[in-house]
Amino acid sequence: MRVSVIGGSSVRPDTAAVAEELGAELADRGHTIVCGGLGGVMEAACRGAHAADAEAETIGILPTDRPSDANRYVTTPIATGLGHARNALVVVNGDAAIAVNGGPGTLSEIGLALAHDRAVAGLDTHDVEGVEAVGSPAAAVEYVEGAVGSGP
Amino acid sequence: MRVSVIGGSSVRPDTAAVAEELGAELADRGHTIVCGGLGGVMEAACRGAHAADAEAETIGILPTDRPSDANRYVTTPIATGLGHARNALVVVNGDAAIAVNGGPGTLSEIGLALAHDRAVAGLDTHDVEGVEAVGSPAAAVEYVEGAVGSGP
Amino acid sequence: MRVSVIGGSSVRPDTAAVAEELGAELADRGHTIVCGGLGGVMEAACRGAHAADAEAETIGILPTDRPSDANRYVTTPIATGLGHARNALVVVNGDAAIAVNGGPGTLSEIGLALAHDRAVAGLDTHDVEGVEAVGSPAAAVEYVEGAVGSGP
Amino acid sequence: MRVSVIGGSSVRPDTAAVAEELGAELADRGHTIVCGGLGGVMEAACRGAHAADAEAETIGILPTDRPSDANRYVTTPIATGLGHARNALVVVNGDAAIAVNGGPGTLSEIGLALAHDRAVAGLDTHDVEGVEAVGSPAAAVEYVEGAVGSGP
Repeated sequence: MRVSVIGGSSVRPDTAAVAEELGAELADRGHTIVCGGLGGVMEAACRGAHAADAEAETIGILPTDRPSDANRYVTTPIATGLGHARNALVVVNGDAAIAVNGGPGTLSEIGLALAHDRAVAGLDTHDVEGVEAVGSPAAAVEYVEGAVGSGP
Repeated sequence: MRVSVIGGSSVRPDTAAVAEELGAELADRGHTIVCGGLGGVMEAACRGAHAADAEAETIGILPTDRPSDANRYVTTPIATGLGHARNALVVVNGDAAIAVNGGPGTLSEIGLALAHDRAVAGLDTHDVEGVEAVGSPAAAVEYVEGAVGSGP
Repeated sequence: MRVSVIGGSSVRPDTAAVAEELGAELADRGHTIVCGGLGGVMEAACRGAHAADAEAETIGILPTDRPSDANRYVTTPIATGLGHARNALVVVNGDAAIAVNGGPGTLSEIGLALAHDRAVAGLDTHDVEGVEAVGSPAAAVEYVEGAVGSGP
Repeated sequence: MRVSVIGGSSVRPDTAAVAEELGAELADRGHTIVCGGLGGVMEAACRGAHAADAEAETIGILPTDRPSDANRYVTTPIATGLGHARNALVVVNGDAAIAVNGGPGTLSEIGLALAHDRAVAGLDTHDVEGVEAVGSPAAAVEYVEGAVGSGP
């Protein structure tokens, strides 16, 4: 399935390490990452996916109108030119979402994901009703797999 | 100034009463309401503004592509056809935002408002860092007036 | 009714004069202008409306996310941050459209207006099936009034 | 490179045949198709690409918010929920565009492509300044290859 990975574009090394591990876990299990295409959590997740599986597809939905603005690990950049309004596109293109840390932009994506009835797992992120706080990338992937699998 | 009023489209009477009082307070002080144009908090705030000042302008930025979908107290409906992606437009058109209660859609607007560096006051809403929790509509208006007035 | 006035953001003086006369004609007949909010045809039409009726409402739907980017004759600026994707919003907010001259951006708005089943009058603009070429601002207004009046 | 293929969602068999040949030609030369993801010209082009190269990537940028609305030959569906506003995304994600027949929606995409300085080849489509009318799918591909190759 497709999983939206959401988080800040500028993060500390420990957060990047979590995102990278998450990307690897998703690729190992055959899932496709959808993200905002920029740096930080987005880049680390794509890098992790690429390291785990050189054939892994990673979709980056960018705020700008230039596909070349994507980080180097995005295999399918999608330019939008919509600014923050593109956040809605990041979440509707995933079957579920996993948030890693993050600031206000990530918070908006959590809200949009929940508004679109997507299951959301959270790793060290905003404490929001409806977000399942988990302790590891593996637990995050297991949670969204279970939520989507048990869906209607 | 313009103030984005954000909140759910389907709310309990006590929440609607708060939103209506907020709308009246904003109109009394000469501010223009920007909202999502639908029911619930959006309609109550516009109704309150209209009751306080029959000439008050209220802008409703709709998710659909039909201006006629706006609630009857919106004086300037703006259709978008963007779905939830229009949430970004609701907050960029305000100089500040006030959240009243609300669910995931409101949470996304709080995130977008903060991402766009707007001051946000909250009335019985999500507990989010950066949102000033206040106890009354008047306190909410005073907070955003002070925040914008003290800006660069 | 609302009429979308579409045309280039940088135009020759004779085109600006036509747009200004069109804006005055629309305001005289009680219509509200919806435009892209920038210069050229958009500014001239809003200026004409303002000169004819100081109370005339003019809505400018901007490509940027700053309401202050609107030309000075726009009474209701709406920021979008959507770039050219905002062209769709310019036409869905009008009951009909009038094109004045214009380049590729205007062509896209003509296409979007027709795709949304809006009647379109053209003044010295692209020769497109479905656009009624007219010889004067007054004829343009009469055409769209007739088209909307005879609608379902 | 990426080539945006634009055209109607409901077309006659002869138009579909041209679009299918175009899709095959693009895939044969190693290009990726970007389209609106629906039926008609969009589906025929993707089908042609798939027939020519079972590994060909085809990107479908949909007006709805459901990736499952894409035609069956789209390998990478991108949902937007933006309605016709998504037309802008179809053209910014191509290095150039090829229009096949089409109505007002296609006209809007031609305008947007030109507004974004994309070279546009036209097969039996709108007669617009800036669009290179060509007589065959092969000529269309050659034209856009030349235009992009000779760009700055």
